Amino acid sequence: MLPSRNLGPNAYLLGVPGSRHTLDTPALVLDRLALEKNIAKMAAIAERHGIGLRPHVKSHKSVRIARMQIEAGALGVSCATLGEAEAMVEAGIPGVLVTSPIVGTNKLRRFVALADHAGPRQLMVVVDDPRNVAELAVHAARLAYPLDVVIDYHAGYHRTGVTDENAALTLARAIADTGMLTLRGVQAYGGHFQHIEAPAQRKAAASQLRDAVASLVAKLESAGIPIELVTGVGTGTHEADASAGVFTEMQPGSYVFMDVEYNDVLAEGAEASPFDTSLFVQSTVISTQAPQWVTIDAGTKSFATDSGSPVAAAGVEGTSSYAFFGDEHGKLIVDPAHRPSLGAHVEFITPHCDPTVNLYDRYHVIEGDTLVDIWPIEARGRL
Amino acid sequence: MLPSRNLGPNAYLLGVPGSRHTLDTPALVLDRLALEKNIAKMAAIAERHGIGLRPHVKSHKSVRIARMQIEAGALGVSCATLGEAEAMVEAGIPGVLVTSPIVGTNKLRRFVALADHAGPRQLMVVVDDPRNVAELAVHAARLAYPLDVVIDYHAGYHRTGVTDENAALTLARAIADTGMLTLRGVQAYGGHFQHIEAPAQRKAAASQLRDAVASLVAKLESAGIPIELVTGVGTGTHEADASAGVFTEMQPGSYVFMDVEYNDVLAEGAEASPFDTSLFVQSTVISTQAPQWVTIDAGTKSFATDSGSPVAAAGVEGTSSYAFFGDEHGKLIVDPAHRPSLGAHVEFITPHCDPTVNLYDRYHVIEGDTLVDIWPIEARGRL
Repeated sequence: MLPSRNLGPNAYLLGVPGSRHTLDTPALVLDRLALEKNIAKMAAIAERHGIGLRPHVKSHKSVRIARMQIEAGALGVSCATLGEAEAMVEAGIPGVLVTSPIVGTNKLRRFVALADHAGPRQLMVVVDDPRNVAELAVHAARLAYPLDVVIDYHAGYHRTGVTDENAALTLARAIADTGMLTLRGVQAYGGHFQHIEAPAQRKAAASQLRDAVASLVAKLESAGIPIELVTGVGTGTHEADASAGVFTEMQPGSYVFMDVEYNDVLAEGAEASPFDTSLFVQSTVISTQAPQWVTIDAGTKSFATDSGSPVAAAGVEGTSSYAFFGDEHGKLIVDPAHRPSLGAHVEFITPHCDPTVNLYDRYHVIEGDTLVDIWPIEARGRL
Repeated sequence: MLPSRNLGPNAYLLGVPGSRHTLDTPALVLDRLALEKNIAKMAAIAERHGIGLRPHVKSHKSVRIARMQIEAGALGVSCATLGEAEAMVEAGIPGVLVTSPIVGTNKLRRFVALADHAGPRQLMVVVDDPRNVAELAVHAARLAYPLDVVIDYHAGYHRTGVTDENAALTLARAIADTGMLTLRGVQAYGGHFQHIEAPAQRKAAASQLRDAVASLVAKLESAGIPIELVTGVGTGTHEADASAGVFTEMQPGSYVFMDVEYNDVLAEGAEASPFDTSLFVQSTVISTQAPQWVTIDAGTKSFATDSGSPVAAAGVEGTSSYAFFGDEHGKLIVDPAHRPSLGAHVEFITPHCDPTVNLYDRYHVIEGDTLVDIWPIEARGRL
């Protein structure tokens, strides 16, 4: 493929002042300064509390952004899938943790080949089952050094993870018995309470999890099993978790972008969210024939549909509300006094950033109103 | 990129008997015989009723499948976006109709360049606004032949399209006045009633639309404006529309794959749907720690979330139900007597085929239980 194809149809606008508003749409737009500010802010929070940061790349799926996070002081990155981990390791990103068990013969073979490529102590995966541990050990036999694993704890979510302390202890012993695996620590990610809007309720859930994790770690250590790292913590609970002294590192993802959902979660009372929205979708008004709304070119193939609707951030005056209108269209119900005209660009905050990013092949990086760069989303679709 | 990368991590399984059940997952699986049967069946329906077929590629986004449809007798293909049309024309697919207005200077430039590349009468686009017609004509001036356009009618949906006969007449005259554009016909796509499950209600809506379209066409022709083609018709209403004599061609898309939604829509009373499900998502059980469910590796980044849940088709015995469990995970609630084991593969019918396909880079083409080919999804993400 030619480079111009990889950069997409907007490459001709690079460096053109005002180009943010003339992009061929739908286009994923990333505000570089807001992104940099968010990365720096989370790094400062971690540093202030003396806690490590291994941000989650499932949100951005981008080597470039991972590198910015590492340069800002992150220990490494967390990945949800083997494909994401491959994209990161191949690009030289250090300290990769895969936060979901890897199951299946060929995937285990790929994982061990990746660990070989990454070098010692550069790649870890969570485990929650002795059968998985046994299989992993078989494949790890080809390595010149032990493979690092982390015990996954259910965190009240029961998505993955051992369900009690005894199961964790049994698993830790099974790991040691293989002779091929090194237990690095424990993961407990409360994915189910990151998005609770009521601060008191969210904080109570996080506090309860920390108590359970502290107890689990004490149990393992009292059995002579050293626990070097305790990982978890998302954007929604980073504040309390960073200072509580239970987790040794955090794996937030969405803070780099923010979205409608997290903006609501992190805005508490009169206080605005500490992070700025850096991610937007640009759309174009392609039909103005209907009386109550205009139709834009961004629908369910342009926005994730799992959590509410996008919210217009620029390009339309007065109140407006978005409704999905099929795969390629959105219905933007507008104030009749401020109907956008045919061809107008409307920019939206995404409803849920992670699965929205997963729909696009590239970020249109902007500074102010100018397209300054186009970054590939290397791990898009690498499930 | 190396060919092996383009084919993904399952290329080593090509031709291996039983490989359908050992794919690295989540993987989009396409049953070739069911696909061929569906393509042949719709072609036969069109032929029987003497109506043209211009199937919609927004569902499959694949050059290979478009070619199969052309070989089975289709006049061409319909595309929802300029990016899809570019993928099709670049691959030599003839008779491309873009079913949504193209708005914006650079997109119009791309469209006219594509028309130039395609040759006379190989590319059409719908219009619903005199301003869009005027802009199109400016760009069309560079062509050696007129550009073909189709008047889009709202069809009761008011997504795009002129809202009444007089507006259509005005638009037809504006098209003629440009001297650069040729009006080929009318589009009326009832996207809002394709998925109505009650057959009588769906048929009544389709019948009402046909009456409106017949009246519109009569009005245009009585004003001396020849209407060569009348396009519309989705998978949900193809049966009645094919034989009614109003539409000259149909643009169904989902019939090639079918999904949970359309299987329900097309199964009437005791009669099964005339089309077979050809599209599936293969997943793997990656955690069996929770008591009431198992966790699989396919979540909101593997299935569209805009219309219900996937349904297990193979790999789990007894009743089961799927619930989304985050971006990378699914919760499969199972009969306790038939819990799938760690590493088991479970195959699902997709809830909504079009946006599900848009999440993947390739089809794993199977015959029986053997992976026989891997096809790229060329127009994925080409919004």
